[in-house]
Amino acid sequence: MNDQTNIKPYVIGLDLGGTNSVFGIVDARGEIKATTAIKTGGYEKVEDYIKASVEALQPIIEHVGGIDKIKAMGIGAPNGNYYNGTIEFAPNLPWAHDGIVPLGKLFSDALGIPVALTNDANAAALGEMVYGVARGMKNFIVITLGTGVGSGIVVNGQLLYGHDGFAGELGHVIMVRGAEGRSCGCGRSGCLEAYCSATGVARTARELLAKTDRPSILREMNPEDITSLDVSIAAGKGDELAKEIYEFTGHMLGEACADFTAFSSPEAYIFFGGMVKAGDLIMDPIKKSYEEHVMNIFKGKAQFLVSGLDGASAAVLGASAIGWEV
Amino acid sequence: MNDQTNIKPYVIGLDLGGTNSVFGIVDARGEIKATTAIKTGGYEKVEDYIKASVEALQPIIEHVGGIDKIKAMGIGAPNGNYYNGTIEFAPNLPWAHDGIVPLGKLFSDALGIPVALTNDANAAALGEMVYGVARGMKNFIVITLGTGVGSGIVVNGQLLYGHDGFAGELGHVIMVRGAEGRSCGCGRSGCLEAYCSATGVARTARELLAKTDRPSILREMNPEDITSLDVSIAAGKGDELAKEIYEFTGHMLGEACADFTAFSSPEAYIFFGGMVKAGDLIMDPIKKSYEEHVMNIFKGKAQFLVSGLDGASAAVLGASAIGWEV
Repeated sequence: MNDQTNIKPYVIGLDLGGTNSVFGIVDARGEIKATTAIKTGGYEKVEDYIKASVEALQPIIEHVGGIDKIKAMGIGAPNGNYYNGTIEFAPNLPWAHDGIVPLGKLFSDALGIPVALTNDANAAALGEMVYGVARGMKNFIVITLGTGVGSGIVVNGQLLYGHDGFAGELGHVIMVRGAEGRSCGCGRSGCLEAYCSATGVARTARELLAKTDRPSILREMNPEDITSLDVSIAAGKGDELAKEIYEFTGHMLGEACADFTAFSSPEAYIFFGGMVKAGDLIMDPIKKSYEEHVMNIFKGKAQFLVSGLDGASAAVLGASAIGWEV
Repeated sequence: MNDQTNIKPYVIGLDLGGTNSVFGIVDARGEIKATTAIKTGGYEKVEDYIKASVEALQPIIEHVGGIDKIKAMGIGAPNGNYYNGTIEFAPNLPWAHDGIVPLGKLFSDALGIPVALTNDANAAALGEMVYGVARGMKNFIVITLGTGVGSGIVVNGQLLYGHDGFAGELGHVIMVRGAEGRSCGCGRSGCLEAYCSATGVARTARELLAKTDRPSILREMNPEDITSLDVSIAAGKGDELAKEIYEFTGHMLGEACADFTAFSSPEAYIFFGGMVKAGDLIMDPIKKSYEEHVMNIFKGKAQFLVSGLDGASAAVLGASAIGWEV
């Protein structure tokens, strides 16, 4: 035993997605020392998922000097409940789709370290606060634009979990009320997510192509195959229709953020996820629409930023960030 | 000197309204020991307002044993900024309508005690937490239904002030987007306040009376003279049109709360202010609409409560509550 025994310089981050579970061992600066991955869905029982995870982790844990060097584990997972360390009714996870799985406790028992768990958007927000563009900020909102629209809200330097652990579902505020609202995966209609997620952008493209005769290189594709990436590429080539799709999307996001500011008046909105790669195409309309729609007392105050985390490892870094909090 | 010298069992609460400034000396149980009041608007310069306030306070301070018995002062005021202790551009206050007035510091210098200040809806929220129905709650939202619609949001046991001190303007989320939205005093249109404040309810009454031929005892009045109180009285007498006005109002409030839950998932909504006197007439439609509109994961979780503070003294109690926090 030497005097380094009690120094635990690393945390494990687990980005638990519908397809892959990506593990990383991360230091306090956000440098990923080693990674590994397993398929998330290849297991019927959570016990088998845990066993496979621990086996995959073993060599990378040894690589950094053993489990004694690891302070804790942080998990970012769909339908993750921070208060209980559980995953609850996650439709895309075969071992958690019809019940409440105490994933935090199971990992903690298997590895012998503390484990904290939250949903992926909250993990992204913590990642920005610990390693990204929100360092030093106490009030900000991360909005993740991916298959869905997620959010992580930080107030007074703390993640907002709410009474039940499920606060921060800003993808499901209603932007179009009544019968005109688009149906949403949540079972209701008119949600922000139904318009401004990657799938929402593709829906807007199909609607606009069907409703008008305007020329667009998107017409060369089968409408059902159009993705937000195709829209982004077309817009990058100067396609007017594709640019209008991003303007529509950004306009609605700006309107939504104006309402969010009436709630928590953050100093910054940070956008995260695949769609953010469209850059100014999406960010400029968001900023313009926000300043048009926000109350006078808030005008000109909020920053609009793009995630400062490296895309490929952002989710693992975000997950690891909650490991430092336990 | 005896060993009681350092015990300061009271705070001063100041409910600073557009017309009256009501002061109360309050103990830790929320019992008001003495009150006094001055006209808010009778002074061109804030220095004169402070002087008149201190003169009015002197006898009630003596009544409880002198300034040494008083821990602090709390002020609930329109456009109050907690971070700076200032009142900023308050349109209805002659001595603060075109600038930033350091009211907290001025009272603190004049009285020799710490002073904290916030807006009236935040004060109401703290009042509920310290003396009212939110005792023991850490996540709740107070919605004040008066001339306007205000809100005080508590998360993790703390008032949500946001980056600039102005968070919690839930009267100004947009409920009706586009050209159809009613104009709002904030300069925009479609705000919750334009529909669900007391003045909004009166507007709904006038709209409904003009749009239809349905019978109503409200038709006996000059439409311009109808107030929310008249609507409430008519509804109480069974007037169908008046009941429909409250249903419309409650329905929109329920929809708005469903969005607020996606933000901060509170355990309770607490309604405060004159309109709440309509009781079940307004509370039942709110609850019904909320459960219809909220996301599945939140259904059946939130309580809908009516303020537990005595109406006449509620605002003073709310203001005094922030005195305990300094």
